[in-house]
Amino acid sequence: MTASSSAQTPGKKDALAGREDAYNGFLIDLEGLPSSPEALLASLRASEAVWRERAYRGIWLRLPKRLAGSTGAAVEAGFEFHHAEKEYLMLTRWMVEGQPDALPPNASHQVGIGACVVNEHGKILAVRELYGPLRGTGVWKLPTGLVHVGEDITETAEREVLEETGVRARFAGVLGVRQAHNVAFGKSDMFFLVALTPEPGQTELRPQLEELEGACWMDPAELTEQPHFVKRPLFQSMLRACRDWAEGRPAALHQRKITSDDEQRRDLILLRSTGGEDGEL
Amino acid sequence: MTASSSAQTPGKKDALAGREDAYNGFLIDLEGLPSSPEALLASLRASEAVWRERAYRGIWLRLPKRLAGSTGAAVEAGFEFHHAEKEYLMLTRWMVEGQPDALPPNASHQVGIGACVVNEHGKILAVRELYGPLRGTGVWKLPTGLVHVGEDITETAEREVLEETGVRARFAGVLGVRQAHNVAFGKSDMFFLVALTPEPGQTELRPQLEELEGACWMDPAELTEQPHFVKRPLFQSMLRACRDWAEGRPAALHQRKITSDDEQRRDLILLRSTGGEDGEL
Repeated sequence: MTASSSAQTPGKKDALAGREDAYNGFLIDLEGLPSSPEALLASLRASEAVWRERAYRGIWLRLPKRLAGSTGAAVEAGFEFHHAEKEYLMLTRWMVEGQPDALPPNASHQVGIGACVVNEHGKILAVRELYGPLRGTGVWKLPTGLVHVGEDITETAEREVLEETGVRARFAGVLGVRQAHNVAFGKSDMFFLVALTPEPGQTELRPQLEELEGACWMDPAELTEQPHFVKRPLFQSMLRACRDWAEGRPAALHQRKITSDDEQRRDLILLRSTGGEDGEL
Repeated sequence: MTASSSAQTPGKKDALAGREDAYNGFLIDLEGLPSSPEALLASLRASEAVWRERAYRGIWLRLPKRLAGSTGAAVEAGFEFHHAEKEYLMLTRWMVEGQPDALPPNASHQVGIGACVVNEHGKILAVRELYGPLRGTGVWKLPTGLVHVGEDITETAEREVLEETGVRARFAGVLGVRQAHNVAFGKSDMFFLVALTPEPGQTELRPQLEELEGACWMDPAELTEQPHFVKRPLFQSMLRACRDWAEGRPAALHQRKITSDDEQRRDLILLRSTGGEDGEL
């Protein structure tokens, strides 16, 4: 997104050093940042003429936690909050007057999974939660959880099932996807309904008692017919996809992990099931 | 995530007012925040005994942009950056010593689409970009774009195709999904390969010349056989899914929009194609 193309120091003295990016933007170097708010404000103001001269569209200022006291100075110099992680706050300044801010936004979605694990008797693994919206309702539901940083959804599903119930199960495919908005901190939610198959001999349940009242293997119809789900078409649709899977109907999307040599990266892709092996995708 | 259950004012004077959430957390009220950094630091310190007495697990402090100058004071009082949007910075303090921070993280993924629009002659809509990694390479590719705040991926696909090429097309299904990590600001990327059908009479192309060199309808084989794609198994897999769609094979996931009455929300769900109508999902 903001890969640097070349190291540069602005021509005028007192202007902050930094690098241009591939989108006519400028990333201020972390190393050269003055440590006092007053000095930072002066440097940001001294840099402005250089930024305008070079017609940068956006300026990126990454303020490490140790310089948190300079946040007010950055805002005074016309910067806005962009995003923050534990160790830093990113501020940006859009330079093109009369045009809306076109800088790339930060992450917009949390991603989670619901795990439909079906055993050899066609029963679905269900849990009862201690916390959250279903607390105290007695409702049995699928194990769910959020994707950790850097985790493939296939890994999230396998991890959550193991953590919550002690069952080792393998990702088998995606049954469905649900997108919802304004869920957490105003962001959206992308929920993958995932099919898994337990490894042989995984019958004993060890529920995670810090988070759960219990875990059990349930008849698909019994799971679906709980009063909490009966009147809710969203849940009905998803539970129907689970029943289909429990009855032997294949999942919609199967996984394939591909190493992109040129990008030194392993991508997970999920494609239409052919009914054949993974290699057949 | 942090829905308030009841309004509360801590018992001791000088402690900050706020509300408990459903996870044994406490959200400091925006209204009562002192405007000077010194006064905020004093209030945060005065509140700590109350927080401990009530055994709160985590404290949430939402600092509006106008109080940016108090960021250093919050960090001094033991708070960490959690996330930021244009108008505010959220800081948190995890109170349970000896246990890792279990507060819910901010959004982890950007979500994007690649649009495979196939016309009645079996040709695929392709564009050549002015910016980004393919700049200057002459490669023809699918229209792509990121989901805007609050937008369903079906809407994103239709909007991007219209904006980039002037073609009105309707979402027809999901062909595949790709997840990649460490893509933008250290976050992950969830990319939906989406099938669309142009509305009747949408043959004239009006490429968005601020962003594109051009747009055209391409033979699927010609698109796939460009040198840039030939050696890349990731692109080959996705382009193969596009060719399948161009040749009449149905998409893997079809959409259904469901209104959740109890949540006053309309959810998009994407489920396995049955080969029938949407209502048949």
